Amino acid sequence: MSRPNPISGFPEWLPAQRIAEQQVVDQLRKTFESYGFAPIETRAVEPMDQLLRKGETSKEVYVLRRLQADADDASDSGLGLHFDLTVPFARYVLENAGKLQFPFRRYQIQKCWRGERPQEGRYREFLQADIDVIDRDTLSPQYEIELPLVIADALAGLPLPPIRMHVNNRKLSQGFYRGLGISDPAEAIRIVDKLDKIGPAAVAEQLRESVGATDDQAKACLALAEIRTPDESFVDRVRALGVTDPVLDEGLAELSAVVSAATSYAPGLVVADLKIARGLDYYTGTVYETVLVGHEGIGSVCSGGRYDNLASAGDVTYPGVGLSIGVSRLLGRLFGQDLLTVSRQSPTCVLVALPDEESRPECMRIAAALRQRGIPTEVAPEPARYGKQIRFADRRGIPYVWFPGEPDEVKDIRSGDQVEADADTWNPPAEDLHPRITGL
Amino acid sequence: MSRPNPISGFPEWLPAQRIAEQQVVDQLRKTFESYGFAPIETRAVEPMDQLLRKGETSKEVYVLRRLQADADDASDSGLGLHFDLTVPFARYVLENAGKLQFPFRRYQIQKCWRGERPQEGRYREFLQADIDVIDRDTLSPQYEIELPLVIADALAGLPLPPIRMHVNNRKLSQGFYRGLGISDPAEAIRIVDKLDKIGPAAVAEQLRESVGATDDQAKACLALAEIRTPDESFVDRVRALGVTDPVLDEGLAELSAVVSAATSYAPGLVVADLKIARGLDYYTGTVYETVLVGHEGIGSVCSGGRYDNLASAGDVTYPGVGLSIGVSRLLGRLFGQDLLTVSRQSPTCVLVALPDEESRPECMRIAAALRQRGIPTEVAPEPARYGKQIRFADRRGIPYVWFPGEPDEVKDIRSGDQVEADADTWNPPAEDLHPRITGL
Repeated sequence: MSRPNPISGFPEWLPAQRIAEQQVVDQLRKTFESYGFAPIETRAVEPMDQLLRKGETSKEVYVLRRLQADADDASDSGLGLHFDLTVPFARYVLENAGKLQFPFRRYQIQKCWRGERPQEGRYREFLQADIDVIDRDTLSPQYEIELPLVIADALAGLPLPPIRMHVNNRKLSQGFYRGLGISDPAEAIRIVDKLDKIGPAAVAEQLRESVGATDDQAKACLALAEIRTPDESFVDRVRALGVTDPVLDEGLAELSAVVSAATSYAPGLVVADLKIARGLDYYTGTVYETVLVGHEGIGSVCSGGRYDNLASAGDVTYPGVGLSIGVSRLLGRLFGQDLLTVSRQSPTCVLVALPDEESRPECMRIAAALRQRGIPTEVAPEPARYGKQIRFADRRGIPYVWFPGEPDEVKDIRSGDQVEADADTWNPPAEDLHPRITGL
Repeated sequence: MSRPNPISGFPEWLPAQRIAEQQVVDQLRKTFESYGFAPIETRAVEPMDQLLRKGETSKEVYVLRRLQADADDASDSGLGLHFDLTVPFARYVLENAGKLQFPFRRYQIQKCWRGERPQEGRYREFLQADIDVIDRDTLSPQYEIELPLVIADALAGLPLPPIRMHVNNRKLSQGFYRGLGISDPAEAIRIVDKLDKIGPAAVAEQLRESVGATDDQAKACLALAEIRTPDESFVDRVRALGVTDPVLDEGLAELSAVVSAATSYAPGLVVADLKIARGLDYYTGTVYETVLVGHEGIGSVCSGGRYDNLASAGDVTYPGVGLSIGVSRLLGRLFGQDLLTVSRQSPTCVLVALPDEESRPECMRIAAALRQRGIPTEVAPEPARYGKQIRFADRRGIPYVWFPGEPDEVKDIRSGDQVEADADTWNPPAEDLHPRITGL
């Protein structure tokens, strides 16, 4: 067997990076739970007809086939890997509606897969961390305010630059396009969503070609997309464009409420940004994108929105709102730019040196006593000169080497300090106990 | 859309069960890290040729196809979902050998997929928790003793019955079959592995049919498989069968060392059980299976072994040993038999009642103060009579409801006790802070 090569679009981290990723995920989880979001996981697969219902992304699904599929058991045919966690969550809620309490708030941290063309920051397999609230029949607009606050709180606990959330409302855009007389407002949203990628000239051209917009209509769409305010003043600027439509009014009112409440709870967190559209068809109201201030080039690290029609059974609908942190995308960029580093590549805090094979039981006892008190410890694999054992620790970034004796001694191999120690009472400084992540 | 149905073999937990699963995984992780195992994750996919190299299981691989595969980009063709974490780990070690420190000890907790016929306790998607140590060129036999101790320690921290590990050595079986004159010892191992499933008569028949064993040879194979001792006395019983072979001798010596050391460190943990074989071809030495004492019918909850030839590049080989806990399988059985329950279905400890919309900022402040001190708290979604808000908490199992006022008060809704409280100082009893899992 020769040395294997990475597969494009399927990132894998080295141990130190995975330690960092775990600490990030732990922090997100802790925050989500502190707001009462319950954990769920859904299976990796969904029926293809579910996956193909919704938007652009569904074109990039990975389809599964069982190598030994037998004709008499088609129970797993027509399955594909999920491309997000919102579609599976809406299905999970429908399937388990009788066993859940509504409004149901959950978080979900799992891998997703998209058969995209791999490119910088776009992965085929990636980790997402989602929070959503779904209710039955009606959903309080309060959650559209609460969710950004939860995300801000979760990310504030990490060594990252501050975030800024760009918020829009689908009704606002859709109502505006309709009031303007554009024939296919949903398609217009998909086109304007590409503004940052392809620029205003190409957007205007696609609006003319795909939805038959006139020059004036295309110009008005771009004028709307240019509006961005840290407060509710966007309302006057939209009104000044002279378009009227009842759905536009709804959108303006809803976005005002979100921006005004967010500004009072967390000044500077949210801006109204009317070019935000989101590629997924299922959003029906508020939509969000999030940038790291000063690192806007990374792109959106947390996106989402309100969806009113994703799940329904019979007469009952389950409207929801959710936000999704792109953990792999965020970490890939931070690792690539050295914006996040970790203090060591092993969880081990103490290596117990093994003077000779006869001492192994005593060394195992010392290690057990340290572990008992929460200190990650391993015993050297084989007897060797102490110099070799210290190098073994040093190569792994293990900060302490323990020498059994009468009395035992422990050495901080960074400073060279060596002191007498008792495995039942000694403690390392708190900052050495576990690997620590640091940002810029 | 009508209510969707579950997909056979792809289990999903309700929130309370997922809370239990997370606590199990957290406990495993904490123990693995306390022994210095570093975390890694590998991508869900491996090239098909890798997956098809090894044993029975490879027949059950799920193959991927991109819905929009374009001819000019074949970068993700020929991929399948991994069926275990050992094959991907060996590949990861080869791929990153220059960046890892050997011996490399890692844990890995991820989903795996097998296109098996779904049946009680067999899933098509399942969570595995693996620990492995891989070294370069040679691997200390010490790890074959350490790994069972780590697993025992990890599972002892959970509310589960005690475990017993059944250990054998592939060299022992293979050498015995060879010494007996059986033509295909590897195939004989695969047949004897089915002993518990199909019984001794069927095993004897398959040995006669598939590897051309005589009646006496088949009888000797079954006599070997019957040997099971809590100590090294299995050696005399094997010798008494009168078969000699140098590989048999190696196997007897290796298994003796494991059983004798394990017995001194953890009496009762390990038994030598010479029928243990394991279905996967890559094992070359010690093999393990693990049962919950008193619940043997659940089957093996943790299996593994030593593999010397799974990874090699040029002249360098990377022998390893690993153990894998079948988390989904274990939990599925425990949930099904009510052997594991959780105290509530929501992380929330306190619901802050909302007397009216004007009080929302004050309620949000109270909730933030409680969260700040690690107390999971949510604010009631909308103003309502206090009776309704208490029922909201009760349905979710949230133990405390907080009433803002002058002064604030907090009610334990289980006992009805209500006391004055300050959000900056009040604490719930430690056992109410988070959901707790309990066993039998």
